Amino acid sequence: MDRQGPNYAIFEPPVSAEAGKTFLGADLGLTATEISRTVHGQGEGSRFVHAHRRNEEVYIVAKGQGWLYIDGEELPLREGSVVRVSCAGKRAVRAAGDQGLVYYCIQAQTGSLEQATFKDGYKLPELASWMPG
Amino acid sequence: MDRQGPNYAIFEPPVSAEAGKTFLGADLGLTATEISRTVHGQGEGSRFVHAHRRNEEVYIVAKGQGWLYIDGEELPLREGSVVRVSCAGKRAVRAAGDQGLVYYCIQAQTGSLEQATFKDGYKLPELASWMPG
Repeated sequence: MDRQGPNYAIFEPPVSAEAGKTFLGADLGLTATEISRTVHGQGEGSRFVHAHRRNEEVYIVAKGQGWLYIDGEELPLREGSVVRVSCAGKRAVRAAGDQGLVYYCIQAQTGSLEQATFKDGYKLPELASWMPG
Repeated sequence: MDRQGPNYAIFEPPVSAEAGKTFLGADLGLTATEISRTVHGQGEGSRFVHAHRRNEEVYIVAKGQGWLYIDGEELPLREGSVVRVSCAGKRAVRAAGDQGLVYYCIQAQTGSLEQATFKDGYKLPELASWMPG
């Protein structure tokens, strides 16, 4: 862990983006999600198809291009693609043949979100340095 | 929504990365998280500090550099930074003065994750096109 405080923890990726998968939940102290960061070299990808028992997954493509195998289809992924895959979805991911892929996968328990955003968040009087007083 | 099936939905970001915040949960049919994608131009950022009642947030920086205001500190963010902020954390984000920032924010209910990864996922016999038989 690179830096943490009473209410936060920060992960900084290694400067050399070696291929592989890193699970961040334990280091970050996550209690609502498990998040992994995967770096695939050109043409590399998951070695098997999988599904889930209880967790919904969301894949966020941060960099590169690739393919999502889902229930027998193969769909293109590009930088910025965000994909929800429900438990039963039979899934796998690979990088495109001519470039690498960096993606994050977020697991969280299906149906567990009860409120969000304007119902869950609230404004505070504190001001950050860039906010007018 | 760009493409969807019984077990998935895909969001594709607009090609022109206009500044602003897009909530993806409704379009993607998310049930475990709410996810927003934020694009800040150079030096732009949140206009207020906020905290949450029940949801843990994770910020993932997909591109650029910026700053996280957290409980009175201001910490640098760079491409690949992943930050857990617990409910009580007083937070705000801005882009660096000389470049823009693209980040995702994932909200999920604190303490809701019960199992993950090898306990929750299971291998299937299906093979994607790139997997040896």
